Amino acid sequence: MSKKEIRVALIGHQFMGIAHSNAYRNVSMWAGTPAKIIMKCLCAKDTPEKLKSFADQFGWEEVETDWKKVVTRRDIDVISIAAPNFLHKEIAIEAAKNGKHILCEKPLAMNLEEAREMLEAVQKADVKHCCGYSYRFTPSLALARQLVREGRVGKIYHVFVRYAQDWLADPNAPMAWRMNKKYAGSGPLGDLSAHSIDATRFVTGLNFKSLVGNLQTLVRERPVDGNNPDGPKEKVTVDDVAQFLVNFEEGATGCFESTRFATGRKNYNTIEVNGSKGSIFWNFEDQNYLLFYDNTQPAKEAGFRKINVTHDVHPYHGGWWPQGHGIGYADSFVIEVAEFLRSITENTEFHPDFEDGVKVQEVLEAVEKSVNGHSWTEIS
Amino acid sequence: MSKKEIRVALIGHQFMGIAHSNAYRNVSMWAGTPAKIIMKCLCAKDTPEKLKSFADQFGWEEVETDWKKVVTRRDIDVISIAAPNFLHKEIAIEAAKNGKHILCEKPLAMNLEEAREMLEAVQKADVKHCCGYSYRFTPSLALARQLVREGRVGKIYHVFVRYAQDWLADPNAPMAWRMNKKYAGSGPLGDLSAHSIDATRFVTGLNFKSLVGNLQTLVRERPVDGNNPDGPKEKVTVDDVAQFLVNFEEGATGCFESTRFATGRKNYNTIEVNGSKGSIFWNFEDQNYLLFYDNTQPAKEAGFRKINVTHDVHPYHGGWWPQGHGIGYADSFVIEVAEFLRSITENTEFHPDFEDGVKVQEVLEAVEKSVNGHSWTEIS
Amino acid sequence: MSKKEIRVALIGHQFMGIAHSNAYRNVSMWAGTPAKIIMKCLCAKDTPEKLKSFADQFGWEEVETDWKKVVTRRDIDVISIAAPNFLHKEIAIEAAKNGKHILCEKPLAMNLEEAREMLEAVQKADVKHCCGYSYRFTPSLALARQLVREGRVGKIYHVFVRYAQDWLADPNAPMAWRMNKKYAGSGPLGDLSAHSIDATRFVTGLNFKSLVGNLQTLVRERPVDGNNPDGPKEKVTVDDVAQFLVNFEEGATGCFESTRFATGRKNYNTIEVNGSKGSIFWNFEDQNYLLFYDNTQPAKEAGFRKINVTHDVHPYHGGWWPQGHGIGYADSFVIEVAEFLRSITENTEFHPDFEDGVKVQEVLEAVEKSVNGHSWTEIS
Amino acid sequence: MSKKEIRVALIGHQFMGIAHSNAYRNVSMWAGTPAKIIMKCLCAKDTPEKLKSFADQFGWEEVETDWKKVVTRRDIDVISIAAPNFLHKEIAIEAAKNGKHILCEKPLAMNLEEAREMLEAVQKADVKHCCGYSYRFTPSLALARQLVREGRVGKIYHVFVRYAQDWLADPNAPMAWRMNKKYAGSGPLGDLSAHSIDATRFVTGLNFKSLVGNLQTLVRERPVDGNNPDGPKEKVTVDDVAQFLVNFEEGATGCFESTRFATGRKNYNTIEVNGSKGSIFWNFEDQNYLLFYDNTQPAKEAGFRKINVTHDVHPYHGGWWPQGHGIGYADSFVIEVAEFLRSITENTEFHPDFEDGVKVQEVLEAVEKSVNGHSWTEIS
Repeated sequence: MSKKEIRVALIGHQFMGIAHSNAYRNVSMWAGTPAKIIMKCLCAKDTPEKLKSFADQFGWEEVETDWKKVVTRRDIDVISIAAPNFLHKEIAIEAAKNGKHILCEKPLAMNLEEAREMLEAVQKADVKHCCGYSYRFTPSLALARQLVREGRVGKIYHVFVRYAQDWLADPNAPMAWRMNKKYAGSGPLGDLSAHSIDATRFVTGLNFKSLVGNLQTLVRERPVDGNNPDGPKEKVTVDDVAQFLVNFEEGATGCFESTRFATGRKNYNTIEVNGSKGSIFWNFEDQNYLLFYDNTQPAKEAGFRKINVTHDVHPYHGGWWPQGHGIGYADSFVIEVAEFLRSITENTEFHPDFEDGVKVQEVLEAVEKSVNGHSWTEIS
Repeated sequence: MSKKEIRVALIGHQFMGIAHSNAYRNVSMWAGTPAKIIMKCLCAKDTPEKLKSFADQFGWEEVETDWKKVVTRRDIDVISIAAPNFLHKEIAIEAAKNGKHILCEKPLAMNLEEAREMLEAVQKADVKHCCGYSYRFTPSLALARQLVREGRVGKIYHVFVRYAQDWLADPNAPMAWRMNKKYAGSGPLGDLSAHSIDATRFVTGLNFKSLVGNLQTLVRERPVDGNNPDGPKEKVTVDDVAQFLVNFEEGATGCFESTRFATGRKNYNTIEVNGSKGSIFWNFEDQNYLLFYDNTQPAKEAGFRKINVTHDVHPYHGGWWPQGHGIGYADSFVIEVAEFLRSITENTEFHPDFEDGVKVQEVLEAVEKSVNGHSWTEIS
Repeated sequence: MSKKEIRVALIGHQFMGIAHSNAYRNVSMWAGTPAKIIMKCLCAKDTPEKLKSFADQFGWEEVETDWKKVVTRRDIDVISIAAPNFLHKEIAIEAAKNGKHILCEKPLAMNLEEAREMLEAVQKADVKHCCGYSYRFTPSLALARQLVREGRVGKIYHVFVRYAQDWLADPNAPMAWRMNKKYAGSGPLGDLSAHSIDATRFVTGLNFKSLVGNLQTLVRERPVDGNNPDGPKEKVTVDDVAQFLVNFEEGATGCFESTRFATGRKNYNTIEVNGSKGSIFWNFEDQNYLLFYDNTQPAKEAGFRKINVTHDVHPYHGGWWPQGHGIGYADSFVIEVAEFLRSITENTEFHPDFEDGVKVQEVLEAVEKSVNGHSWTEIS
Repeated sequence: MSKKEIRVALIGHQFMGIAHSNAYRNVSMWAGTPAKIIMKCLCAKDTPEKLKSFADQFGWEEVETDWKKVVTRRDIDVISIAAPNFLHKEIAIEAAKNGKHILCEKPLAMNLEEAREMLEAVQKADVKHCCGYSYRFTPSLALARQLVREGRVGKIYHVFVRYAQDWLADPNAPMAWRMNKKYAGSGPLGDLSAHSIDATRFVTGLNFKSLVGNLQTLVRERPVDGNNPDGPKEKVTVDDVAQFLVNFEEGATGCFESTRFATGRKNYNTIEVNGSKGSIFWNFEDQNYLLFYDNTQPAKEAGFRKINVTHDVHPYHGGWWPQGHGIGYADSFVIEVAEFLRSITENTEFHPDFEDGVKVQEVLEAVEKSVNGHSWTEIS
């Protein structure tokens, strides 16, 4: 790898493919990375025309349809995996074997076993690895972590964590691959609770000890064609709502829920942490804010503070805009990529890495085990 | 009983005794009940001076220290029970035997068995009975019920219910009877989750089918003397946080938590109901508001509406003040008493009654059973 | 006057008459005043039946229709004036002559001249006097004053004050006496901005120096009969919206608006104070909260705190309910009456008194003068 | 000009220069403009090294220090003016003479006369022109306009408009060119109220008729060196707070304030519009939301709706991210540039143009005239 350039290939061009593309295109603008980012190659399954159009729009130099060719190219330094979950393992392991640094979307894998294989592969290959829990790079959540880790909430009593969306609330919304266990692995559990689990680890540092879960499918079959709700239907084979109660090793408790049926909640990714000295509440729908309650202040004045997390002193925010000029969803990916690339050029530790990805997978697997066994389960 | 007068005796003069006293004193002012309310007798264990002072302050005509005398007096029509939980059963059963109408604070009893005995007693005596789930009479929660029952949220997918306070967040807060299982029965489970269970039944009409619970004691011993944290300590024998996951008979799921350790949450008694056509969110800390999301409106305009529930058309509110002039915590008790007394004078059905109290107790008992058995439990 | 009893007569039985009645009925319950309050006499223009019914409902011992008889009765200690504005002066002056203590609703008078006469009368008679700016007794506004007076916002730069309601937003809402200058004196200027002016003086202590105003009538005629919008109409002769810009003697600026046409704003009585060290924002629609921004905290943590003003340490709140159990609109009147009666029994200074009422009237008069002269006006 | 390419030169590389650079770099990514954007040339007064560094970071091909050379280059199609206000006129007129399309930052000019000259120049040259009131392209404000223009708030009664920041609240913040009338023209009046005036015109379509203003300097001198508050000081020659009351031709009233002294308000750019059928409230600090009150709904359900303006159906938002994934401050500039470039390639009308810029300038000038004359002023 040249010291002056980092050459990137992206695999996948859906929602996350766009987020990654935007991040690579903007990272030098904001982060002043020592290396020059070359958006070398886009790889996805699509027609040449559509691939070309996507590449032109976002600035990828070349297109490719076979990821196996991409991961062996010598002119690529970083592989960014935004392909469907069931492909993560194979791509990542091959990329690692070829010495590529890897940024892989979350959840890391279809299950814990896969995730562990992937971790082993990157450790063996001694490459840098990132598991894309991008919310860690939202300044407000990063501030939550700072405050909690500095002891500002004191001893943690409990976390209360809900990630709610509503795009499946309509029972006639059509069937899609995300409701098929074969392709998606799980429903909101892997899609949304995975973020909640990572956010909890990131902010609190608590270790999951045991849990009991509940996974329910609220709409058991859906029309194949959304415009023909009375036509043929297919079975939904994933959870529609995922809930679990947690006891942490440190003595705290946790309450988790994720759903795509919470009418009116658009991307209500939230975490509340209550401790002996204070509390924080974070909600991604208000991503430029953090609520913080400081119990060490006199009762007369104590209240949840709505911190506008856009000041130079706030994590990641410096260098963007004057205070009060908030950032958006896509910007967290820019920061994530900037930090990951810096860890490559400076050879420093990076989180969230594949080990963090494995840790999340341990909890997801425990939830499924608990549901199958209809019982409490220890985290392995 | 005279048609013109209803003569009331109150047993208990702590927090709830004050709330009841205020309600009886103000009920005629607001509700224009057909009967004249006579605040006949206050009964509590205390010195004559203190009882007299309390009675003068709130307008009770006489004082008494032995509740057994009170429930047999012929010049009493209604017994209002605001005594500690462990006394509820005995008082209520004696009062029923003597033909008194009974307003009993929640939770109805120390356990399900007691509650069922109490219900049997009032049914046998054919008296009116109220179990004091007073939040039902907060106009905003009553509006939530109206909207849900009118089908405005459609088919219910899930409820998300948290009742959080913070007055025990300080680990050096002193031991008190509320942390002693012998006197209190349970911690936030019976104190707070009882309200949450009733609110869920009231608003949604859903029937609890099965659940799994978690009760944890976060601070296991506390100083006897709050001013001497290093002095002698006593064991806390109740839960500090109560959590449970629920499957309802109708197919919806529920997630419940109550705690006294949520620093910054003062009386955060909340319920969110998500359905196919809409959602409601209610938070007692903003008791004059209800949030309602109507999914039948065009996406362009849809959003949670913050309804200021102070208009004449809103339940219970008419007759109080012009719109925007909110009411307070104590006023729900005035409404509760007004409605209960009306059910007596008009001989109509009243809710929440002891049967509602029993229903809550069934769920509380199932939570304890689940925790003891470390397993899912069916509601009996 | 007996040391043991304070005997009250109320003149007026509309909106404010109800608020006063509720206050006298509840004051001993909450405030433990040394004197016993006797609700001696209700006086209003109405049928004997309706007066009797009102008196029964609220607990007045006797009824009367001629206020002139009431103010001369020897068995009355306090006259509470809740009659229409145009009667304030005459009643107050007669009451003062007869040595009665006086609680008079706001605005004190129809104009500055009247107000000054009233002040002179009570000063000469050496009686206690209260001008009913009741929001001063809302704990959250009282806390705002405490913080500002303790220097927590530093040097004040500006106040931004809006009092908005919406009950006239419908152009077909029928004509009423409140839109007739003859009976009402003015529109929202005297009705709402009067409160804003007093709140500004109360919280900040700033002195009004000069101002420029704008009064506009947005709907110039209204149907006599609201059910017949196309029928006969009458002219609206008061302002519908009142605005004024202020320079204070201390160098700060102010921006004031009041209106009854702000659709969706129910009783949006607000004040924001910005200073070198902090800011406060108060909104009566959330009467149990105060927002406070403390600029002396590190930028990383600074944010508007939402203080739940229901703790024992907060002004006036102690003795009501546990934290998080908010109070309502009517309770401010209970506190006002409690404080006023205490100033009588303890012979202490009381505010807001008639002098405060005169100060508000000076500003109101300056606004009208400014509008008539289409120019800036000095406060006399 | 080539049909396939639009070649852009940017003049200025401070705050707005960065915002413009980001917009040109990202516009093709999001907007799919038919033309290819060439970031040809950056021009600013700085060292070659710093210019080169800036150009590399943002992707400008060449650098230049003399704007006069830039505006005459034949390989430039669009001139983007982000230079200090006092240079706007000269640059724009020269650029127009050379047939360049022009995007000029706001306020358009130092005064009304200049603005009119600029408008004449672009009209004569028949080039496309944009005055950079970028908030028009915030989806939530654009939605506000849609709702108001569709009649959803009915007849407009009043607007209430405040733009508050706090970066000068510290009296020891050092002197800067923005506090010097010679370079800045005015304080928050031209900087912030200019946005408020444009937002009012954009959302409501109301025409300013007359106004009365107040401009005050709250801190009259400031240290030259912020680290030495007791050292030499310079006079502040602009306003620190700008206020004005407005009567619109259509009969509505307006109340405007802007300030940099509102401690705790970071970029509180707000507008409230109240009408006979509804209201909207917009606050840029929550840029992904719009509050809308629909008065045609039953009173029982009416409330301010918090619309999360991130749905495909919302203006400008389609094509970005799934609902609930908000955008940031910089994105409004991307949209602005996309729309402006489209008006060039498709030869369509564009707003806000220089005529809109002149309209704002008319109001700003009237405020200054009113303040100087201490009187109401008609808008010319």
